[in-house]
Amino acid sequence: MKATLTNEIKKLDTYTWPTGFYSDGLHAGLKEEKKDMGWLYSEVPASAAGVYTTNQFQAAPTKLTKLTINVNHQLQAMIMNSANANSCTGPQGTKDAHMMQQLTAQKLNINNDLVGVASTGIIGEQMPMDKITEGIEQLELTKNANVTEAILTTDKHPKTISVQFKINDQTVTMSGFAKGSGMIHPNMATMLGFVTTDANVDGIELQQLLSSQVDETFNQITVDGDTSTNDMVVVMANGMASNQQLTSEHADYPVFVAAFHQVLGFLAKSIAEGGEGATKLVEANVMGALNHEEAQTVAKAIVGSNLVKAAIFGEDPNWGRLMGAIGQTNAHVDVEHVSVWFNDQIIVKNSQAAIFDEGVMKDSLKSNVVTIKVDLNNGDANGQAWGCDLTYQYVKINAAYHS
Amino acid sequence: MKATLTNEIKKLDTYTWPTGFYSDGLHAGLKEEKKDMGWLYSEVPASAAGVYTTNQFQAAPTKLTKLTINVNHQLQAMIMNSANANSCTGPQGTKDAHMMQQLTAQKLNINNDLVGVASTGIIGEQMPMDKITEGIEQLELTKNANVTEAILTTDKHPKTISVQFKINDQTVTMSGFAKGSGMIHPNMATMLGFVTTDANVDGIELQQLLSSQVDETFNQITVDGDTSTNDMVVVMANGMASNQQLTSEHADYPVFVAAFHQVLGFLAKSIAEGGEGATKLVEANVMGALNHEEAQTVAKAIVGSNLVKAAIFGEDPNWGRLMGAIGQTNAHVDVEHVSVWFNDQIIVKNSQAAIFDEGVMKDSLKSNVVTIKVDLNNGDANGQAWGCDLTYQYVKINAAYHS
Repeated sequence: MKATLTNEIKKLDTYTWPTGFYSDGLHAGLKEEKKDMGWLYSEVPASAAGVYTTNQFQAAPTKLTKLTINVNHQLQAMIMNSANANSCTGPQGTKDAHMMQQLTAQKLNINNDLVGVASTGIIGEQMPMDKITEGIEQLELTKNANVTEAILTTDKHPKTISVQFKINDQTVTMSGFAKGSGMIHPNMATMLGFVTTDANVDGIELQQLLSSQVDETFNQITVDGDTSTNDMVVVMANGMASNQQLTSEHADYPVFVAAFHQVLGFLAKSIAEGGEGATKLVEANVMGALNHEEAQTVAKAIVGSNLVKAAIFGEDPNWGRLMGAIGQTNAHVDVEHVSVWFNDQIIVKNSQAAIFDEGVMKDSLKSNVVTIKVDLNNGDANGQAWGCDLTYQYVKINAAYHS
Repeated sequence: MKATLTNEIKKLDTYTWPTGFYSDGLHAGLKEEKKDMGWLYSEVPASAAGVYTTNQFQAAPTKLTKLTINVNHQLQAMIMNSANANSCTGPQGTKDAHMMQQLTAQKLNINNDLVGVASTGIIGEQMPMDKITEGIEQLELTKNANVTEAILTTDKHPKTISVQFKINDQTVTMSGFAKGSGMIHPNMATMLGFVTTDANVDGIELQQLLSSQVDETFNQITVDGDTSTNDMVVVMANGMASNQQLTSEHADYPVFVAAFHQVLGFLAKSIAEGGEGATKLVEANVMGALNHEEAQTVAKAIVGSNLVKAAIFGEDPNWGRLMGAIGQTNAHVDVEHVSVWFNDQIIVKNSQAAIFDEGVMKDSLKSNVVTIKVDLNNGDANGQAWGCDLTYQYVKINAAYHS
């Protein structure tokens, strides 16, 4: 299915806001120099859907956005900041998140319950509301992409993608941006992801689609196994492309799904690749599993193992650690007949060392992308996950981030 | 209970083999220079119990030892080597483990099914059986502690403990040694632990005691979240102290349990403290949990978080990451009323930043032991776990170990 659909989805060279979407980003003084506040705005209320961290300590803005979207699956704006997560900030934090929502709504002259709030950064410090208030006052309605920078923390660069495709012969644009870096793990970690589109799509349908697609993309990445209190992926679809409303019954729905998968998949992989201190993207492809869930579990276990991650940093084909990672899951495995390939070169056959050219293997592991393929030899299901290597730089960043 | 019993348990200044136990260790050529083979021998068959890795890829020696002990809960000898794990080595690996058992039994003139085999080191390479055979030939029956060195891999030094106590007014000696380092996580990781005692205790009883005590000690440590294929803890009790046989009905049984707990707890903490590249031991004490299991889960989550571990390496009281680690468990938490102490100084109250002296806190985090206390405010149960910090050195060791 994807092969044909991909032809119909055009990836744009530059980040492009869909029809009716405006945005801005600026330096409000939460960070020393870099941009730290931004927003999104749609000319008309948009269908909206969200997925949120599963961490029990959900931050005030995360809870508020969830509540807001759940009112009637609509949003018209999102206000965002980095440098301060407004998490573990008690009743004052809740009040501040509401104030951010209210100030934004007032400035845009829309209802409070059409405004989402997203924050990321240090946990446990109260929001500097004077700076936030001034930042909101200064934000404008532009077509610049400053907001994609304003949400970053230790990320090296913005993660953005824009695609176009046709629904009922109308051109639809879909654009996504995200922040990641550390604390990235299945179930939403410290990451923010936002997708805007001018497609006309039902809000409930959008929510179902988002939830299922997040399971295949954002929930299959890990940087360090740690989840955060602030994560969310929010989608806004404002309908200004004027296509006939999309539901799963619509003939062009598969194109929309494929585009959505492409956007979320790209952002998820970008987050894994841009993990704190990372030098390599690691992709695990598991086949021969009893079912998809088990294949996904094994793939995540591989990209999540510190020992595997450190070995890949060292460009060392240490497959014993890989077997350790596979074996510590509960997935069904034919323990005598597992095969493993590093960058398509076989290294394990029948759960033992295979014969391979060490020089060729060493060279191939110098690549920026390391693909690990595993055949569990126990069924027909496949799964995928993405991570990165574990480096000195990761330790350095995380030993020093707070102070 | 423990307070009074501890008075009756004397920790010895030097490692001491219990009555009737002999041992040796030497360099057989598996490593370049260091000792790499050793054994244990008891004059008479000893009651024996074992706990083994839960990893699906159980190494050949691990499987064989389990099988052997399960015959009738007896062992008279253990043969051990480091540098090669004999894991993922197929039918040849199984043959080699049996050969190690058989050669040892022949040399000691005892039955094969009284000999356990333990290996640790690189996964996926066949055992150099010529060196192993020669090593077994050279091993002698001595009272030296060479074997405690011969099982080490990247460990900085041996982990040993000897205690004495009275059962029926007979002096009983109990001595334990272990190897750890990387790949250390709940459920037995890459670690070998051996306890010998001259106490007279029933084998079945010993197995039950070992299993329950391992849950409170070895299974509550983590270095990197990775488990291995070769781990085991084996206990041998040869009865040569001539006490009346211990069962749970015996009046002095609590002393035996307390001593056993002390020995396993000491070895477990030593492994956490001696984790690859570690500079600090991290102890998590969780209270206010709904039940013991949840308290243990939260404690493990804390010491298992890469972000917490890196922060502790950086001597940075980044409690936000700690909240993240707690919140990603399923344990019942009063999310508005959690308290946290670092080295007994409060840092979080009602799930928000508490007022504390930053200078005093910074100084206290320079210590080699960092204690994190957490009150979940949701019940009366406690739990404990141990880990270490995440350092540049950990990455270095694990990026380079294989090659």
